[in-house]
Amino acid sequence: MQCNVAPRALTNKHPSFTCLPEPRLLFITIHVNLTQYWQQRQATFEKALNQALPKKTVRPATIHEAMRYSLFAGGKRLRPILCLAAAESLGGPLKNALPLACAVECIHTYSLIHDDLPSMDNDDLRRGKPTSHKVYGEGMAILAGDALLTIAFELVARCPGWPRYKVADLITELSRASGSQGLIAGQVVDLESEGKPISIQDLRYIHRNKTSALITSSLRLGAMSANATPTQLKTLTQFGEALGLAFQVMDDILDITQTSAELGKSAGKDVKVQKATYPALLGLEGAQKEAKRLTTQAMNALKPLGSSGQRLHEIAQYMLTRKN
Amino acid sequence: MQCNVAPRALTNKHPSFTCLPEPRLLFITIHVNLTQYWQQRQATFEKALNQALPKKTVRPATIHEAMRYSLFAGGKRLRPILCLAAAESLGGPLKNALPLACAVECIHTYSLIHDDLPSMDNDDLRRGKPTSHKVYGEGMAILAGDALLTIAFELVARCPGWPRYKVADLITELSRASGSQGLIAGQVVDLESEGKPISIQDLRYIHRNKTSALITSSLRLGAMSANATPTQLKTLTQFGEALGLAFQVMDDILDITQTSAELGKSAGKDVKVQKATYPALLGLEGAQKEAKRLTTQAMNALKPLGSSGQRLHEIAQYMLTRKN
Repeated sequence: MQCNVAPRALTNKHPSFTCLPEPRLLFITIHVNLTQYWQQRQATFEKALNQALPKKTVRPATIHEAMRYSLFAGGKRLRPILCLAAAESLGGPLKNALPLACAVECIHTYSLIHDDLPSMDNDDLRRGKPTSHKVYGEGMAILAGDALLTIAFELVARCPGWPRYKVADLITELSRASGSQGLIAGQVVDLESEGKPISIQDLRYIHRNKTSALITSSLRLGAMSANATPTQLKTLTQFGEALGLAFQVMDDILDITQTSAELGKSAGKDVKVQKATYPALLGLEGAQKEAKRLTTQAMNALKPLGSSGQRLHEIAQYMLTRKN
Repeated sequence: MQCNVAPRALTNKHPSFTCLPEPRLLFITIHVNLTQYWQQRQATFEKALNQALPKKTVRPATIHEAMRYSLFAGGKRLRPILCLAAAESLGGPLKNALPLACAVECIHTYSLIHDDLPSMDNDDLRRGKPTSHKVYGEGMAILAGDALLTIAFELVARCPGWPRYKVADLITELSRASGSQGLIAGQVVDLESEGKPISIQDLRYIHRNKTSALITSSLRLGAMSANATPTQLKTLTQFGEALGLAFQVMDDILDITQTSAELGKSAGKDVKVQKATYPALLGLEGAQKEAKRLTTQAMNALKPLGSSGQRLHEIAQYMLTRKN
């Protein structure tokens, strides 16, 4: 089942209906459902994340303030939502997946704080607010990132483990996805490639590691919390790998088609620093085709889940049409 | 049993004896034993660490080179040795403690890389070699630190767990000791205190977190790998807390009494940046007394272990008399 209407921003209020949906409205209803789903899960997640993190007042206050400043800066929570949706698609309870959803968001946020530093992407704006180092200084921003990376593993260790997946498996999953052959590998090659011509293979390597690895891991961790069978885990892995690449291609496209205000981060940055992107290599149209191709690949990967995969299918569709 | 002879640098060859030890030589023999013990355990540790880390050639090569550059820069391996000695003092096999010893050294090394950055302590020299950011640039140094922090948890997850301590307990132990209320807390307050007058209480807070937390955790993790009883764990915790503070007081003393060549890092740095230190607050003699007092406290804490605590006792004595 597909959503053929461009989703509104997820924070918008959804339209209300007082009559049974006509065929034309069916798609809108699905979108409304996704919006509602996202809002509800996001609210549950925000509460869990707030409880999981040390309060602002805990000594030393500056680091806890800085950690919370970036964590609660209004992100879409894509990775946590994917984690929760993966768990639910396999019939797993939300409470099992929540600590893992918090952990992946901590990893994602740490990576943004460090990526935004002057010695990396040198970005002043993130999620519409000044970046961590602009507010707290570089030293504190580095430490806030370190602290978020560290607490992520503590959060995973709060899980009891499940018949097929012990805590050690969850830790290994997250550390590999985030480590020197995962997320960090992507950032390293990205950093080394700036201002140089790179091949489509290298660009794909960057995206596979920098973006797709943690998106895939979010889905896998959610699946593990639902005690996924090996086949189910493989299905979600294939979905995540294609979805993660599609997401990054869209990110590259949005960087040149949207304004900074629309994106909540500095638009046009990739072109300015001559960053290798899909539109730069394939042209805007070529990149759009590639995003569509990867989204279709992701959706096809979900087929073995049947109707249980509907929510993830909708999320993939939304990600292709998102505006920020 | 105490060592009353100032230990030589541990890398020196130990004196050899062809006759039975006279009473005067008894202490020297103990030192030789410690030197031998340290050398043997260090060799075992280096091999394990080398095997645990991705090879330099693994893509992306730069990050693995940078991780190895700092990890194998000739450190004393104090924390791993404490981890192994704690395990052995409780009769635990070395192989159980080795992944944990590797993990604490990865955490320690990451913290040094990040502390040395221009936005933190801005140090050019570490272990007698240019610091990571001087060799690889700031961005790569930050990522190398991140990667070492991340892999530390993967290494812990390789442990099978033991009857009293599951992998989740080990992860929680390491993440708390390294996190925003442990090692990072110390660095935060240290960063915030630079150039300002601070109280002895605040200085102790910095040292307890920045240095003592990971030293204590190294001992605790070693103890856990030997399936320590709660009482044994408490004993090693008390030992570690006092030892960690003594170690940091000595570090402050060495910063003003030794040369950069002797230390392998920039000497006199604390005074230059008006850093709060024990000698600055208590004078050199006062700081030396404090180091001795804390070492005695550490040694007394070991009493419940009886003769099994001898090696740790010797290490505490060595740490008081070390020259770098």
